[in-house]
Amino acid sequence: MQKANKVFIAKSLDGFIAGKNGELDWLDMVPNPDQLGLGYFEFMDSIDALLMGRNSFETVMGFDVEWPYQCPVFVWSSSLEAIPQAYSAKAELVSGSIEEVLATIHQKGYGRLYIDGGKTIQSFLQADLIDEMVITTIPILLGGGVPLFGELTERLEFTHVRSEVLFGELVQDCYRRKR
Amino acid sequence: MQKANKVFIAKSLDGFIAGKNGELDWLDMVPNPDQLGLGYFEFMDSIDALLMGRNSFETVMGFDVEWPYQCPVFVWSSSLEAIPQAYSAKAELVSGSIEEVLATIHQKGYGRLYIDGGKTIQSFLQADLIDEMVITTIPILLGGGVPLFGELTERLEFTHVRSEVLFGELVQDCYRRKR
Repeated sequence: MQKANKVFIAKSLDGFIAGKNGELDWLDMVPNPDQLGLGYFEFMDSIDALLMGRNSFETVMGFDVEWPYQCPVFVWSSSLEAIPQAYSAKAELVSGSIEEVLATIHQKGYGRLYIDGGKTIQSFLQADLIDEMVITTIPILLGGGVPLFGELTERLEFTHVRSEVLFGELVQDCYRRKR
Repeated sequence: MQKANKVFIAKSLDGFIAGKNGELDWLDMVPNPDQLGLGYFEFMDSIDALLMGRNSFETVMGFDVEWPYQCPVFVWSSSLEAIPQAYSAKAELVSGSIEEVLATIHQKGYGRLYIDGGKTIQSFLQADLIDEMVITTIPILLGGGVPLFGELTERLEFTHVRSEVLFGELVQDCYRRKR
């Protein structure tokens, strides 16, 4: 089974994935009908399952739209007791250490994982378990908020894979971990 | 007189301009003989003078190389009493508020300014006085250090001007303030 942990996320110029009060409106400052053209569907085709933290799960549940994922979704949380019933067919709760969570998901046959959410991504980077990052930069300085990256005890070098300008305003960069 | 305040700087993927102990070695992780090809000389041709803070000035004095600037250099500091004699022909001390410093430099006939150094850039952004930023991203996560960007009370929107991949590894993005 092919295994890889991938990030696909948008950030502000100053590295935030949400504003000081969790705002996400700035993600749409560049007109972008239906999120087409961002490479999202191609990316989703390249993964087997999605792993997110409780915060991201609650954000997605709060969106006033249909459940947006076609792939299996795992929610990593030690505080959540169960997935709310309305979502029990859509997401599965996993807990334990990062290694235990990965073992659980791999055992179910899912190797290529979309790692989503600030804290989850930071935990995976801290454990040097991220293989690829696709980062879309929105040309705005938020000046504070929820940071994409966090403290690391060791530097991590990446290799540049590609960069693309989307809608004339967004820059999407793909990086792969140097191993 | 044409006036503009411009930034030209390199940062890590996670937004640091120096490591936890001020390290700058990672700036050279991509072989880049003589810093050619980064657009630095073209950028220097587009400015009339450079303004940096005390930290940056001390960093440049500490470099084991000849004074690297051909243009007039202003050092913005309230704590420095005088420019050390060895550099008195090369740099001029300015103090006061951001508006006072700009007025002083403009009065001397320099309109297009290279704004350099983390704290100086952050002060200019906080006052919404940066017009253009050329940011080169090195594909490394440092996990901590001296941040390029700081707190802002207001969001600042920019327009994407251009992106370029240099040496196959560095991404240089140019942004202009939306006004």
